This record gives sequence, structure tokens and C-alpha cells, in this order.
Amino acid sequence: MPAPQPIDLLVSGGTLLTLAGPAVTIDDAAVGVSGGKILFACARREAPAVIPRETLDAAGCLVLPGLVNTHTHLPMTCFRGLADDLPLMEWLHDHMFPAEAKHVNREMIYRGALLGMAEMILSGTTTCCDSYFYESSVVQAALDAGVRIVAGQGFIDLSPPGAAELASKAAAAEKFLSRWMPLSPMVTPSLFCHSPYTCATETLRLVKRIAVESGVSFMMHLSETREEVDIIRSRYGTRPVSYLERNGILGERTALVHCVWLDEDEMDLLAASGTAACHCPESNMKLASGIAPVTALLARGVAVGLGTDGCASNNDLDMMLEMDTMAKLHKAATSNPAAMDAETTLRIATIGGARALGLQDLVGTIEPGKRADLIVVDLRRPHLTPLYRPCSHIVYACRGSDVRDTIIDGKVVMRNRELRTIDVQKAMDDVREIAERVKKDGR
Amino acid sequence: MPAPQPIDLLVSGGTLLTLAGPAVTIDDAAVGVSGGKILFACARREAPAVIPRETLDAAGCLVLPGLVNTHTHLPMTCFRGLADDLPLMEWLHDHMFPAEAKHVNREMIYRGALLGMAEMILSGTTTCCDSYFYESSVVQAALDAGVRIVAGQGFIDLSPPGAAELASKAAAAEKFLSRWMPLSPMVTPSLFCHSPYTCATETLRLVKRIAVESGVSFMMHLSETREEVDIIRSRYGTRPVSYLERNGILGERTALVHCVWLDEDEMDLLAASGTAACHCPESNMKLASGIAPVTALLARGVAVGLGTDGCASNNDLDMMLEMDTMAKLHKAATSNPAAMDAETTLRIATIGGARALGLQDLVGTIEPGKRADLIVVDLRRPHLTPLYRPCSHIVYACRGSDVRDTIIDGKVVMRNRELRTIDVQKAMDDVREIAERVKKDGR
Repeated sequence: MPAPQPIDLLVSGGTLLTLAGPAVTIDDAAVGVSGGKILFACARREAPAVIPRETLDAAGCLVLPGLVNTHTHLPMTCFRGLADDLPLMEWLHDHMFPAEAKHVNREMIYRGALLGMAEMILSGTTTCCDSYFYESSVVQAALDAGVRIVAGQGFIDLSPPGAAELASKAAAAEKFLSRWMPLSPMVTPSLFCHSPYTCATETLRLVKRIAVESGVSFMMHLSETREEVDIIRSRYGTRPVSYLERNGILGERTALVHCVWLDEDEMDLLAASGTAACHCPESNMKLASGIAPVTALLARGVAVGLGTDGCASNNDLDMMLEMDTMAKLHKAATSNPAAMDAETTLRIATIGGARALGLQDLVGTIEPGKRADLIVVDLRRPHLTPLYRPCSHIVYACRGSDVRDTIIDGKVVMRNRELRTIDVQKAMDDVREIAERVKKDGR
Repeated sequence: MPAPQPIDLLVSGGTLLTLAGPAVTIDDAAVGVSGGKILFACARREAPAVIPRETLDAAGCLVLPGLVNTHTHLPMTCFRGLADDLPLMEWLHDHMFPAEAKHVNREMIYRGALLGMAEMILSGTTTCCDSYFYESSVVQAALDAGVRIVAGQGFIDLSPPGAAELASKAAAAEKFLSRWMPLSPMVTPSLFCHSPYTCATETLRLVKRIAVESGVSFMMHLSETREEVDIIRSRYGTRPVSYLERNGILGERTALVHCVWLDEDEMDLLAASGTAACHCPESNMKLASGIAPVTALLARGVAVGLGTDGCASNNDLDMMLEMDTMAKLHKAATSNPAAMDAETTLRIATIGGARALGLQDLVGTIEPGKRADLIVVDLRRPHLTPLYRPCSHIVYACRGSDVRDTIIDGKVVMRNRELRTIDVQKAMDDVREIAERVKKDGR
């Protein structure tokens, strides 16, 4: 009999949903973690003998992979609820862009992002994909919070870019990538063009080329509104996805956010090219942009992830609620109650998102060798009683506040709802101070 | 200067949303309560001098009217998550009806209802409208929990009713009504026919007649699925609402639940007759029944309330989440982001629901003379920071678990998330015991 092995963390008891392979639940489970990685995930009676430095008792709880939020703009927590119930273009041009022009700076970015990190940890998100201005300040907040991040340096053209502007964009991209390279498991840099209607073709081609050369992901908002499709058609004589294809933008390291207005040919192009889609149902509903054809994308084998979008258009970062909405929305949209069942939904919010971000070998399931991103959901609550099927509870009954413990890269960043990496009171005060300035503005 | 008046309860500080008249927020507010009623609701500096028996400090919180859940089947908490991702008729006939046939009894009803009461109090619902078998046991749970209830004795025909069945229905209706008459502010009996496709015309006419004679509400599921409309058309040669009109079922004391498949004429009929509609967006989405034309009903002046439906088809009783979904769904359904704005949504979930249930003089707003049903929502949380506009936060960012205190009929039934009227552990254990029996059944 081997001597008990010392390990960093043991999550002991409870029901485990690994999502590795076909969905099976393991009752009275044990997950062992060391060096940031999962060592074992199995029934407790089959677990090796260990001496854990820290133990989490998960009796009465569900243990599942941490949630992957594939699209957000974390600093926009500073603008949460600033303007609602408006069309996208009015919301963007009359409210968000002016507020950003006036209030965005490195301090606002860091503070907003850190509060967003707190909200994500509290609601079970362990990996996020963010894009905003001064993205390195968002990365700093992620590192301080201990949240895994895919960070997209943002690009937008306010006027048609000349050679000088393109050179300065290339320099910015390279500076950002070199700052966060070589890759660490916690930070994956990427490049994010705002959209095909706010970026010139030369900008898209340049940024995609640098992404390919550096081996990082290229991301972009795409076909969020019908209006956008009309703009692209009148400007380039074709629909957005085929415009991207012509310019070499599609491919396995490209993830397109929203994908609301796609026709059949465009969906085929995404599938054939291995391009991923990030779906933000609540944001699309709130801005009345439309309903993305996600079940049709899944049927074609497109990698689909789920995202909350920024807090100014949702207005929260709660992936548990986003799952609930996504599952129900696609049943309604397809008139098929069997569409987007609970298990499919949970996979999209975990391994599906990891796949869309190119992190499928790192996270998204609980299996030996993967980084240890997992959450413990406390089921001993009235709204989660009784329990018949775990996936159903996670998708249709849980909300973020049911997450009791959050583990990222083997580190317990929240235990029993207490955050270990963030001073929540200070994080809230810091954002309130920014909001006071925004309010004084009359915005 | 008058001597300070002794009162039962003072809610002091915080931001008050009375919803009485145009939406205004009162900062640093005070709400005084005695004898179950609201005495004053105003700025603290304008409040009379009082000596409260109990005080709730609402600094940093929002104080608003308790939420009104206009449609649920509380005992179905026992079947929460038992069957999902199925078509309504399959879900109903292959899962719910068989589970009910085997497991429904007074004990199951009481236990399921009591757990539902706990969940409602924990998520800010102060009035519910329920219908199920053995409805008096649900009323007993409501009385024990201190939750205000409109309780509908249910009627359904398993075969065409003869004179004997009709007489027995009349006797059941009269027995139920006489048991809960005269009206108390806490319990309002009503009569609930399951649907026009499961009840014979004679049953509807009989039950409606008894409701009218007794001065209580008549309620029924209506036009939940397209299939149902087809059944009624083929059976009676007309659409459901005009079928009801011909039979004298419409009117101010009638509330119809779901109302998904209505044409323009039917909406006009509802408006002209003063018939109310209870909207259950999450249940309708989850069962893929369709999207009720709620904005069109509101435009016609129809009284619309919001409901969660039972826990077997949602799968929770959280009215905060139901508001969020409703607001976003109707923006998506109408392609209009200004549709179903936050304030409209909140009114539907409070005074709108009260109006649909005929309780608008009793509850739904915070104003002197009304019964004291109010909730205190704690905003000092990451996902509710910063605050620009209270209605926006309630609808788009809050979830039930943000409710800190719940007051019903002047009684603090939850203080700082601790329930005072229900032993939550026991309530959960009691329902788990029933669920074990259901599981043994293989259902």
C-alpha cells in the first residue's frame, strides 16, 4: 500500500459532474488537486490515499467544472444600468461611447474589471474572455483576482486608417502580445477587432495576420443586428461571413461574437472553416438584436460558447442565469421544448466555451491532467429541493449565488462565499466613486 | 408637537419605490406599519415621531412592494426538475399526471406548498395565486407561512360530466368557498377550471356561475399551446376566447392564465370585457408553448400579472428572475428594445398582478391604508454595484436571493434571510422524503 501522498486540495463528498465524456454523475466523489492540476476525480472509495493541505467538504453539494464566460467587457461594470431599454445604436452612440470617451482610463478599467472579477467568482465563472480598452489593466485585475482570462486587445477605426494608423495598430498588437507571452495557463492574450462595420478591411487583415503569426485567437463582434448586415452588404456587396472569408479572417483560431443574423450559407462557412461562435442571449434579447440560430450552429458542429456580454447590456455576469435563459430561449425560438436540453446547455457553458476559446485541453471538464477549475454548488436550499437530476438543477434552478466555493487553477478563490483574493468592500467603493463622477456628468 | 405614536414596525432609511402614482424614488425614506397596514411612506425627515416595536434599517437597500406571483401550483415543488426538455402534452400526460395520480395526497400538498412558501418569502414574493388539488391544504401552508394567497379550488373533467358530477362539483366549490369565507386580507378563495379542453362547457358555466354568486374570481389556463386552440376550434367551431365569451365566462372577475395564442379579436374581447391575463413567460419558453402577446395586451389596457407557474415547469418561484426574463423576452419578440421597460415590468410584477387578482385596493403599492407587503433588497453586493436607476437594478440585475427582509401584512416573515414562520430544514427534509418515494417509482 503506497504512503498517503501530500496534495494541495481535496474536494470530498457530494455529487460530481465531470462532463468528461458522456454525462455521468459520481456520488460521494473525491477530486484531488495539486500544482494547479486535477490529479484524480472519482468515487471517494476509489480515490488514492492523500494528505491534503486544504479540504472542502462537498456533502450535499454538486461539484462541476467552472463556468467559461466567452464574451464580456468587464470594465463596463462601471456603467451597469446606466442606460437600458434603448436600441443598440442609440445605446451605443448616445450613452456608452460618450461615457467611455469621458471616463475610460487605466484606473477605471482596473476598478471595473476587479469588481467584475468578484462578481464572476461569486457566481461560478472561472474563465472569462474579455475585450476592452487598456486591456493590460484588465489582465492585471484578473491576475490579482486569480481568474483565468483570455484577454483581447481591442481595435476600432474611427476613420479610414492610413499607413501610419495601421503601423501604430501593429505596434499596439505586438506590444500587447509580447507583454503577455509566453503563454501562462492563467493569461491567454488575443486580438479583438470591434466589428466589420467599425474596422476597415485593412485593419481586420492586419490584425488577423498578426494573430496567426503569434498563434493567438482573433475575435470580433459579428452580425449582432440586422442593420449591421445591411451596412456590410452595401459597403462590400456581400454578407458579413462571406466578407470575412474573402479576407482570410475565418478559421480555427477565430471566434465571432453574437452571430445573430446568419443565413444557411454563412453557417456552413463557419462550420467548414472551424470558426467558433460566442453566444450572448441575454444581451441580444435586451438590445432586441435578435435570436442567434444556435441550435442550427450546433447541428453543424460549430464550437459554440456562452457569454454574458458586458454589464451595461445584460446587466450582470451571472452565467448560471445566462444558461437558464439560453435553454429557454432556444426552446421558444424553435418551438421545440427538447431543443437546448439541460446537458447541452451546461456543456456549452463549460467545455463548449473552452473549445471556442481554444482552451479545451486546459479547462472545461474535470479530468486528471486538466487545470483545476471547479465549483461547488450548495443544493441544501429551498429552491434546489428536491433533487432529481443535477443538470436540470444547474440550468433551470440555480443562480450564481448558489455557488459556495470557487477553485481556479487549484486555488480556492472563494470559500463559503468569502472571497480570498479581492477586498469586496473596497472594490465596490472604488466603482461607486467612478459612478458618482459619471452621474455628475448627467449621463 | 404630538407625542410619539407606538407602531408595530418602522423600515427606516434606504431608497423607497412606492409605485403609487408615477414612479418616484424617495431617498432616506421611512415606512411605518401598524395593525398590518401602512401608516406612512415618505422621506424620513417628514415622517411622524413613532416608537416602533421593531425596526429594520434599510440603509443601502431598496424598499419596494412585495412581488405578486399570479400563477403557480405550489405543491409541484415536490416534482421540481422531475422531467424537463419535453413537449407540454408529453410532459403532462407521461410525467406529471402519472406522478400526481400516484403521489398527490393532503400531506404531499401541504409539504410541497410549505417549501414553496419558503422559496417565495426568500425571493420577495408576498402574494401568490395558487391552484391545485386539495387546495385547502395549500391555504393552510400559506396561513402557517404568513404568505398572502388567492387560492383556487381546481376543477377538471376526466370524462363528460353528468348531472351527478356537476352536482358534486357545485358542492365542492361551495364547500371550499364557505370554508374560506368571509374574506380575510390573507386568504382570498377563488375557483379554477383547468382549461377549456379538459373541462366541459357545463362545468365552466357552473363554476363561473358559482364564482359570480359568491363574488370571487374565476380562473383558468387558456390558449397555452397552438394545439389547444385547434382542439377548441374543432370542438366548438370557434377560438377559445370567443368560446368563453359565448358562455359568459369573460369579465372583470375572470383571469386567464398563459394567453399565448390570441388573435387580435380575442385581445379586443379580453380588453372590452375587463378580463385579466396572467403571464408565465419562463414556463411558456421552457415548454416551447410560444410567446404571449403581452405588449399588445398592455396596449389595450388589459390587466396583466406575472406568474412563475409551478416548479415542475420553470423550475423555480423566483419572481425577480421572471421579471428579467419577461422584460428581455418581449424586447426580443417585438424587435423593440424599448418594449417592456424596467418600470413597466416592475409594475406588472406588483400592482399589475394585484389588479389581475382583484387585490389592487389591498396590495401592490406602498401607500398609507394598504396592507403592509414590502421587501427590502440589499444593494451592497458586487453584482448590484454601482446603482444608477433602481428599477433597472430590480429587473435586470437582482435575483431573489438579494431580498434581505420580507414583510407580509405588517409581519416580518424574513429578517436578514432568516425565516421566522417556517422551519426550513424540516420543510426541505419533508419534501425530500416525498421525492424519494417518487424516485422509487422510476418516475
